[in-house]
Amino acid sequence: MSLAKVGIIGASGFTGKTLAGILLGHKSVELQVLNSESNEGKLVSEIYPEFTGSGLKFTNYSLDEIGKKNLNLVFLAMPDGNAKNIAIELIEKGIKVIDLSKDFRFSEKAVYGLPEFFSEEIKKAKLVANPGCYATACLLASKPLDETGGIKHFIFDCKSGVSGAGKKPSNVNNFNSLSENILAYKLTNHKHLPEIGQFLKGNVSFTPHVIPAIQGIMCTLHVIFEKKVDAKEVKKLYEKFYSEKEFVKILGSSLPELHGVQKSNYCHIGGFEVDESNQMVIVSTIDNLFKGAAGQAIQNMNLMLGFNENEGLLKWKKN
Amino acid sequence: MSLAKVGIIGASGFTGKTLAGILLGHKSVELQVLNSESNEGKLVSEIYPEFTGSGLKFTNYSLDEIGKKNLNLVFLAMPDGNAKNIAIELIEKGIKVIDLSKDFRFSEKAVYGLPEFFSEEIKKAKLVANPGCYATACLLASKPLDETGGIKHFIFDCKSGVSGAGKKPSNVNNFNSLSENILAYKLTNHKHLPEIGQFLKGNVSFTPHVIPAIQGIMCTLHVIFEKKVDAKEVKKLYEKFYSEKEFVKILGSSLPELHGVQKSNYCHIGGFEVDESNQMVIVSTIDNLFKGAAGQAIQNMNLMLGFNENEGLLKWKKN
Amino acid sequence: MSLAKVGIIGASGFTGKTLAGILLGHKSVELQVLNSESNEGKLVSEIYPEFTGSGLKFTNYSLDEIGKKNLNLVFLAMPDGNAKNIAIELIEKGIKVIDLSKDFRFSEKAVYGLPEFFSEEIKKAKLVANPGCYATACLLASKPLDETGGIKHFIFDCKSGVSGAGKKPSNVNNFNSLSENILAYKLTNHKHLPEIGQFLKGNVSFTPHVIPAIQGIMCTLHVIFEKKVDAKEVKKLYEKFYSEKEFVKILGSSLPELHGVQKSNYCHIGGFEVDESNQMVIVSTIDNLFKGAAGQAIQNMNLMLGFNENEGLLKWKKN
Amino acid sequence: MSLAKVGIIGASGFTGKTLAGILLGHKSVELQVLNSESNEGKLVSEIYPEFTGSGLKFTNYSLDEIGKKNLNLVFLAMPDGNAKNIAIELIEKGIKVIDLSKDFRFSEKAVYGLPEFFSEEIKKAKLVANPGCYATACLLASKPLDETGGIKHFIFDCKSGVSGAGKKPSNVNNFNSLSENILAYKLTNHKHLPEIGQFLKGNVSFTPHVIPAIQGIMCTLHVIFEKKVDAKEVKKLYEKFYSEKEFVKILGSSLPELHGVQKSNYCHIGGFEVDESNQMVIVSTIDNLFKGAAGQAIQNMNLMLGFNENEGLLKWKKN
Repeated sequence: MSLAKVGIIGASGFTGKTLAGILLGHKSVELQVLNSESNEGKLVSEIYPEFTGSGLKFTNYSLDEIGKKNLNLVFLAMPDGNAKNIAIELIEKGIKVIDLSKDFRFSEKAVYGLPEFFSEEIKKAKLVANPGCYATACLLASKPLDETGGIKHFIFDCKSGVSGAGKKPSNVNNFNSLSENILAYKLTNHKHLPEIGQFLKGNVSFTPHVIPAIQGIMCTLHVIFEKKVDAKEVKKLYEKFYSEKEFVKILGSSLPELHGVQKSNYCHIGGFEVDESNQMVIVSTIDNLFKGAAGQAIQNMNLMLGFNENEGLLKWKKN
Repeated sequence: MSLAKVGIIGASGFTGKTLAGILLGHKSVELQVLNSESNEGKLVSEIYPEFTGSGLKFTNYSLDEIGKKNLNLVFLAMPDGNAKNIAIELIEKGIKVIDLSKDFRFSEKAVYGLPEFFSEEIKKAKLVANPGCYATACLLASKPLDETGGIKHFIFDCKSGVSGAGKKPSNVNNFNSLSENILAYKLTNHKHLPEIGQFLKGNVSFTPHVIPAIQGIMCTLHVIFEKKVDAKEVKKLYEKFYSEKEFVKILGSSLPELHGVQKSNYCHIGGFEVDESNQMVIVSTIDNLFKGAAGQAIQNMNLMLGFNENEGLLKWKKN
Repeated sequence: MSLAKVGIIGASGFTGKTLAGILLGHKSVELQVLNSESNEGKLVSEIYPEFTGSGLKFTNYSLDEIGKKNLNLVFLAMPDGNAKNIAIELIEKGIKVIDLSKDFRFSEKAVYGLPEFFSEEIKKAKLVANPGCYATACLLASKPLDETGGIKHFIFDCKSGVSGAGKKPSNVNNFNSLSENILAYKLTNHKHLPEIGQFLKGNVSFTPHVIPAIQGIMCTLHVIFEKKVDAKEVKKLYEKFYSEKEFVKILGSSLPELHGVQKSNYCHIGGFEVDESNQMVIVSTIDNLFKGAAGQAIQNMNLMLGFNENEGLLKWKKN
Repeated sequence: MSLAKVGIIGASGFTGKTLAGILLGHKSVELQVLNSESNEGKLVSEIYPEFTGSGLKFTNYSLDEIGKKNLNLVFLAMPDGNAKNIAIELIEKGIKVIDLSKDFRFSEKAVYGLPEFFSEEIKKAKLVANPGCYATACLLASKPLDETGGIKHFIFDCKSGVSGAGKKPSNVNNFNSLSENILAYKLTNHKHLPEIGQFLKGNVSFTPHVIPAIQGIMCTLHVIFEKKVDAKEVKKLYEKFYSEKEFVKILGSSLPELHGVQKSNYCHIGGFEVDESNQMVIVSTIDNLFKGAAGQAIQNMNLMLGFNENEGLLKWKKN
């Protein structure tokens, strides 16, 4: 069977290189375009030494050139605001698009790419808006509660590795500023708050922090219920809700940690403890670059191109 | 003027060695007892290389021997449960006691040693229960709100460096487990919850996490108000409340971080942002071993022995 | 084609779990024995959360039981000293053995399992002594110099992540001791010194350090030549020496770092700079748990069982 | 007694702020000038949160204005190359100068400011060239060997925290690049090599590395002797050499680590082990910002202004 042809625009950022890494091991696609304006012609390994031996090079094709390559799908891994026109132009050329910026997350032109909730829509989509990393961790941790009702307040207190802030050297990702530290930021007005809020009923608050780690997000969800709630029932609800979802695991007695999900497309959910004030704590973890970005984008690609949803994303061979 | 004589029992833990370090620079006291059962006779520098050159050695005096040394005050820096009898015995010998375990934090025999709130009582006390590290960060961040009323829920989501879990090697403080990770634990039933709750009106929830850092606690307080609240007014209230308190700083536009308070007795408080659901976020940071343990204990000692409250704890000479 | 059957004894350590992780993705084998005395019946994910969803459980079969399972090969991942008798017994049962301890590294009963040098011997071996992690990094960095002659002294100054010291909590792997630190140890008498020395001509010195990182070794080799040496010629020599070796990459202008090799079986070599005192610096990096232990063991297994040497170890599909 | 007046030019870098921090606690001086071109008028705490409460602000006086302030001494903490003219101009105005760049380290106009070797010259100097951080660690570790003779080669393999690379965000100090990594650089041609070499007899090689830590340098010195050498005698030689030097400690059985010296002006030296090839390993550690820069500069200032050499630099009060 012939391979699907795909490309990445904005390939030199963390999301782009994570996409490239996964695609190099994906059996049903070949990577034809690896666009990075500023790195054209360079070996990827010059920037990311883990690519040594791959031979992979950055390209810088124009949209016209891309149009002639018969690509099936393009990933846009550019800064917020840059994808709008490019996405439309590619779609007009008959190429499916997965945009990893926030540009289409509130748009009716795109399907919101959280495959655990919207897989049917994604299968038919020409344009998918890949969710934000925080939004992914928060929504996976909270969405099943829609069925319970009686929720007064969702408070998402999130902790992220610093790769979420991008590759460009700054005061935030400076080792001198971050090691032996933790940084709270955008306490009440982060761009991911409305992205989460649009899918939940009830009050929603969201506060992010950067921790001294590279990759991974922990979402500590504090849910305030109107009245007494049965923790075991809630846990069962989650187990049922995600029973058919390969990439979401409801943990037994242990709590989710970053080590469980790093460099994988999995989301771990656990906790489900309630205190006397009817506050329940649910904890979820993902890798912000995988399930929170590139991994999820591949999962969306698999659905859009008719492959097995898990292809290229499993840690182990199927038994 | 003759120096006050003090001692530490349980001196080889992180709290004990931090106490010793501060006392070596304190002008009004001399350290006479540095008891560590398991390290008697050893140089402190064998365990803590930053003590090289101090000449300081661990002792192992009996309570009887300690009784004959005319000590003014003893710090108990032992595991929870061990201090109860020793404290009483020392007080009977006429020695004032500051206990850093949780043993007397709910007891009428002791004064709760949070000097920003209870300095008058501490001045007269024979036995002070030094607060827990989390409780200190949480109470300093929340107590002024007592004056506002209309609080429905305090949710304290705390992040601590791993020194809070003690010095003994374990799976929690193993570098292999903690680096590039974050661990949530005791989501709703931590021993510090009732310690915090006893001083606040309203629902109180508390969830701690361990981050890959040695020293420092960040408390992210999510307060849910019954109705619209004016963030600027709340901030003014805090500024007034702590205006005479040397060790609590209300930050201007920047947010508290661990780097601001590490190896010092200061607490930084900031944030005061409100979202549309009347949820306000207030952030506080302390060093768990200083303001959260040993530094606060020295502050209490200063009050109990009639010294300037700040002695031995200022970072710079007074201008 | 039927799969080869393999087992791991001592499976709960870092080396054992890394072996298990690779084997779960290896197409030509099935993992039948995963012995851990202390964890029999437990899910591997209870200890290593990244195994969540694998369903893998620790076993504790006796050697007799193992003998009846028709295994083709067993990995011994036990502490030094424990493998001697077990290896012999397994071989007598007709099972090939790869021992990852130091027990057979100086023994004529075993082939030294550095496939870049001894692949022909390994293919025929019943018992392979898998090299030490430091020895692997040092020998790959130095062995091609045998051809140049005129070497007065090899000084290997190595820096290792702390996983090399094992999983058991200790003062060395305590986050409180290691973060923001570096530890030199066994300055001149490490057990890996003779292991390296047996394969090199000239004086050999070796000094290891533990750095605040989990995985990876950097070997900084200082070679003192008797007379002027041409750096470019030396580099060419290395390129030729390793031209057919998939897992050893001679870097261009960049220097090896841990990020280039972590969680992979690759060794990166670079540097080749000479100063005025005829001292050349060559730098190599490996992942101590992969090329320094489990990955190399799989490479040896592939040779011993007649598979492609690279199977299960490539980061990407072959183009 | 009136206080000496001092200033810092280039105050917003790591060296400048460390100088400011020490000077705020120094009893014999007052800090009158804290020049930072780009931060004039800002509170120091806006950049360094640990200065919260100090009230300290950056200034931007011209050299003329500085000339009228009757300063006794100015520290130049500017990038290499910028100090040359400024230093001369200040000296002409009758102000003593300590330059922390490399500009005068090879110049006859200045005294090399390593007080353990040149205290008499420093006392009389108008211009002191403060040594490089690596040079300090290396020279303190090696200089006493001048007396032994028979040294063929000094190989300094150094490991530094990343603050040595300065405060400006870059690919080197990016947390994403440095965490779980170690970087070798300038393997044979670092600017500190001639700085070290000018004071030693014998071949000198020097290779630096950056480790994932903020502050501290470890120098692992490999000395190759011409013939058999007695380790105990060498150690005794060091103990005698430094017996009167407060800030250099020869350790007993333990090895130097960064934790022993961080945020202090001390240098720890230990090791003194020899192997069969007459290679001895000596390990030294300093804090690159203290003994390697600002602390040593204060030590030089104390000598130049006639204060006690240790003033403002001791960790504890004198007993």
